[in-house]
Parts: sequence; C-alpha cells; structure tokens
Amino acid sequence: MPVTVNAFAALERDAQITPWRYEQRDARPHDVRVDVLYCGICHTDLHHIGPWGRHFPVVPGHEMVGRVIETGPAVTAHAVGDLVAIGPVVDSCRTCPPCLAGDETLCLTVATSTYGAEDRHGDGITRGGYADRVVADERFVYRLPDGLDPAAAAPLLCAGSTVFAPLRHWAAGPGTTVGIVGIGGLGHLGVKFARALGAHVVAFTTSAAKAEDARRLGAHEVVLAGDAAQPVNRLDLIIDTVPAVHPMTPLVQALRTDGTLVTVGLPATLDVAPFALAVGRKSIAGAGAGGTRDTREMLEFAAAHGITADIELLGTADIDTGLRRLAANDVKYRFVIDLKR
Amino acid sequence: MPVTVNAFAALERDAQITPWRYEQRDARPHDVRVDVLYCGICHTDLHHIGPWGRHFPVVPGHEMVGRVIETGPAVTAHAVGDLVAIGPVVDSCRTCPPCLAGDETLCLTVATSTYGAEDRHGDGITRGGYADRVVADERFVYRLPDGLDPAAAAPLLCAGSTVFAPLRHWAAGPGTTVGIVGIGGLGHLGVKFARALGAHVVAFTTSAAKAEDARRLGAHEVVLAGDAAQPVNRLDLIIDTVPAVHPMTPLVQALRTDGTLVTVGLPATLDVAPFALAVGRKSIAGAGAGGTRDTREMLEFAAAHGITADIELLGTADIDTGLRRLAANDVKYRFVIDLKR
Repeated sequence: MPVTVNAFAALERDAQITPWRYEQRDARPHDVRVDVLYCGICHTDLHHIGPWGRHFPVVPGHEMVGRVIETGPAVTAHAVGDLVAIGPVVDSCRTCPPCLAGDETLCLTVATSTYGAEDRHGDGITRGGYADRVVADERFVYRLPDGLDPAAAAPLLCAGSTVFAPLRHWAAGPGTTVGIVGIGGLGHLGVKFARALGAHVVAFTTSAAKAEDARRLGAHEVVLAGDAAQPVNRLDLIIDTVPAVHPMTPLVQALRTDGTLVTVGLPATLDVAPFALAVGRKSIAGAGAGGTRDTREMLEFAAAHGITADIELLGTADIDTGLRRLAANDVKYRFVIDLKR
Repeated sequence: MPVTVNAFAALERDAQITPWRYEQRDARPHDVRVDVLYCGICHTDLHHIGPWGRHFPVVPGHEMVGRVIETGPAVTAHAVGDLVAIGPVVDSCRTCPPCLAGDETLCLTVATSTYGAEDRHGDGITRGGYADRVVADERFVYRLPDGLDPAAAAPLLCAGSTVFAPLRHWAAGPGTTVGIVGIGGLGHLGVKFARALGAHVVAFTTSAAKAEDARRLGAHEVVLAGDAAQPVNRLDLIIDTVPAVHPMTPLVQALRTDGTLVTVGLPATLDVAPFALAVGRKSIAGAGAGGTRDTREMLEFAAAHGITADIELLGTADIDTGLRRLAANDVKYRFVIDLKR
C-alpha cells in the first residue's frame, strides 16, 4: 500500500511553496519511514527551489527530526517509536574509500541528496522533509540522543554538521585558536561547537549588532569587518560560513603559518590574493556536511554539551514567509517548521 | 677596505640591464663574501626590475653558485675556497617559530630578500648575484655538495627549492600520485624531483611540443590542457607552477579526496569554483622557496640523485637577451649567467 504524503513543494522553479500530495514508495528492506515532527529551513533550500532545481515539484528539507512509524524487514538500527533525525544525504555508493570511512558526503560517485536527486534504485526523485512523511535507508537515519530538544536539534543535521565536521577534521580543540566567519545559521553553531571543543574562538562579523550575540554564543573575541585591529598570524583554523563573495585576504592574513581557511559558505569565487597564501604556506579548503561517522559524533557531542540551534519556529502556513525572511538574512538563527501546526 | 663590485643592474624601473659598480660592505663577523661564478635568471627578476622594484638601481639574481673569498671572524660554516650557493633570502628574524624551525622564508617579520630589500642592520639595500661579488650571513650560504655541476646547480637555489619544499611538506613519495602543472623553469625540476622522490608523476602542459620532453624529464603520464581524458579523483598533490591566471577547477577535480593543489606560480587570482573544493574536501595552498632546512636537504637530495636544471648558459653581455626571451617563455628551461664571460 503506497503511503500518501502531505508535503509542501515548489511546483515549478521560483514558485511559492504550496501543499502538495505525493505517493511515497513502499518500504524497502532497509528503509525506515518517519513521521516528520520538525524540519529546518536551510539556505540551500532557496537554491533548490530556484536556479539549482532540476526535478519539479521540489519538496525541500534536509534537517529533520521525527518518529519512526515503519521499518523494513531488514532494519536493525531503529524501531517504531524511536526519535530519529535525517540530514542532507540519504544514499551513496557505500564502496568507495570515503564511503567506507563513513564520509559518505564525499562519495566518489556523488552521494544522493535527501531531496531533488534520482533514487539509486530507480524509484523516482527523492523528496525532503517539508512533509509529514519521509522514507530513507537506515544507514542515513540517526538516533536522536536523549536530552536534545527535537525542534532545536533539527538544524544540527545540516548546519551543525557542516561546521562540526571541518572543526573535527582540522583538529579544533584546546590550544588552538579558531575563527568563525559569519554569525548566521551555520556560524552561530560554529561558535558553539568550537567553544565546546575547547578552542579559543574568534567570531568575525560585518554586523556590529551581532557582536554582543557572538559573545553570548561563546566567542572569546569578536572582530568587526573593517576594524583597524584585525588579527594577524594568530588563527590555526577559520570556518568561513559566508555564501556571498567577500574579501578573504584579510582572513588568510589572520591565519598562523600553515593555517587553513575552510569555506563552507561556498561563494561563487574566491576573492583572495594567492601571494597571501604563500606568505605562511596557508591553505583554503572547501567542505560540506559530514558523513554518517561525523554526524553521529556531532549528535552525541551536541547532547553531551547541550548544544542546539537558536531557532524561530514556524507553522506550515508560514514556510514562504520564512524563506523570504531567510533570503533577506532576517533570522536568528534558523527557522524550523513545526509539521504539526 | 670596501670592495668594489662589478654588477649588472637596472638603473631605473624597466631599464635595460647595464654594467654598474657599487661599494660592498665590509664583512660583518658572520659574513661570507663570495666570488660569483654562475647566477640563474628567475622569472621574479623580471618583476623586480619592473613593477615590484622599489630601490633602484636593482642588481637582480638569487640563484648563485660561487667560491668563498673572505669570511668574517665568527664564521664557522664555510672557509675560503669553498664552493657555495645562495638563494632568494639572506636574513630573517631568527627568533619566530618558522625561523626556529629552519623555515626562514616563512619568517613572521618577512625574510630579507637577497636583492632589493633593506638590510636588517642598516647597511643599505641588498644586491643580488648578477655581479662578481655577493656578501651574506653564513646561515644563508649553503655548501654546494660534490658532484653537482656548478652552472646547472645554480637554478636549484630558487626554482628547485620552490618545487622541492612543497613536495616534501605535502609528503610526495612512493605510493603517491603527484601532478606538476607547467613544464618550465620550476616545472621541469618539479618533474625530476617528484620522480626521484618515488611518486607517480603526471605532467600537465598546454604545449603538445613539451609532452615528449616531460616524459624525458621523468613524467609517467602527460596531460594536455583541453584533452578529453583529464584525470579525476586520482592525484594526491599538485604543484602548480603557472604564473598566469588559468582554470584551476579541472586541476582540483583531478585531486583525490583531501588532496592539495599548491600554487607556487602565484597567479594574480585563483580561477576556481569553491564548490569543486567542497566535493572531496580539497585544498589550495600557496608556497614559495624553502628555508635553510629544506634548501640543505634539497641540495643533498639533488646531489644524491644527480638532479640539476636543464640550462642555457649566457655571457654577461647577453643578460638582456635572456630576460627578453624569458618574458616570451623561450627557454628550456633556465638561463644561467656565466659571470666569468
């Protein structure tokens, strides 16, 4: 019996989000079907209902928390009634070196996105969490650790993972100084995680109004863009969450010898003087959300340190308002849709 | 008694190189004075007699081999008669962490260039190796290992060091696949060093005419820009020697997960899609010539493996011709000035 899903979709490119029903596949042996409770609104969602969208209608949403309502016969990781979470990837080849290491978001065949991608088994197009139901393979479904508020935990699945994974990969911790550039959905979680990991945290923002907030979130120092006193040769690592093209040379100059600036905001171009990289043998790296290994670790770490997102909860009637306000950068710091209202 | 030096200088910006005499300082306690035998012509020399020049007359030259003719009273590393070499740096603060590690080219106070820089002890402007004499602190004067042809070894001091240092820092060796982009002064030495270090070497060139040469130099594979079959997800490390702005996204795509492209050509901008970095968590780093630790190791390694530059020897009357041909990319693969003719 196919399941009818009450979803919220962009029926065509740049269309408003409207209610839309679709038939969801039967559970495959390793599938878990989830009653979605909360779904974060990610900046990427704006791209996918706009220029990046390929398969309309698009049901966005890849920061979900919900409850298991059905399991395929081979599922061992989850049981009906479990509180679980799903992030931006729901499948991968599982055999390439990154997949074998649990870095499925780096799958050499390109991991299957949670929405808007072709299912690997010919079962149509994947659809996301702006909906009352999602179905996904158990490997890509995470147990939500006890103690995390389900609504405020939803953004951990993409925003949180995208900052936590590079902080871990580039070894942020005690004795290191870490810069977080851009205090938004990703950056506010970056400050929280970097602080909890034991690093000395320097927040970079263009907004004087966010300086106080950055301190409240855990930053030891706040640097305003354009300030006379910019740090020089001091930071081991920078996580740059800004999606707009912005001057990176001052950030590179802030790095210590052999330091790395990781762009997770992924602007269209890198506005940086290569010479500034050579002076100090510095690097610019790119990164995205972590795979299953990092995501599991991130959720446990978040629970252990009481870290969730600062959110504004929206009813399903307000999704479009949320997207518009997000596009205007008017959110502190993540919208989450309550699928039950 | 000051020493009168017969040098070849650009008397003003963009001027031709002409004979020019100057008085060289007395030897300080740790100074070594060298009778210059050979000096390579580096691409940087073009910049320093052009837009980068600050203190004219400029005596270029930072790839020297010569013989010690005088030592200050405190010198212990070298003796009169020794065959020695000098590279692009002749002083640094000596106390910052990079200096203490022998990475003086990464000195946090900016190392003193061999020519065109202010001496740290108030003794005027440094002057380079287009001259019959140079003077430098013993720390930055290297013993030339036995068995290296002095003329063909001269370019090792900048071109060689600039490719060897990142190959070592990013651990090129057996089991790794290394790309060398641009088969010129730096690139041809990059191919030789990478091969001798035990890596599988992939040469990238825009010139079909250089493909055969790249194989002769040691490349296992040659990739022509624009070829249908570009490598993907295969290289651990790329040393990119191209100084002109060029598309880097295909090079980044050639890197394996977590791979690094090191630009030593230092173009004005990085023409790369940041998204290509995120797919595979890849990095772009900048680097320049090595410090004393890497340079000493490079010279010993070159001697052990019989590596020198492929050079064209010029008399002092032909320096300008050499510079013009270098600007037109018409050299295989490095000009060296014979200061004795």
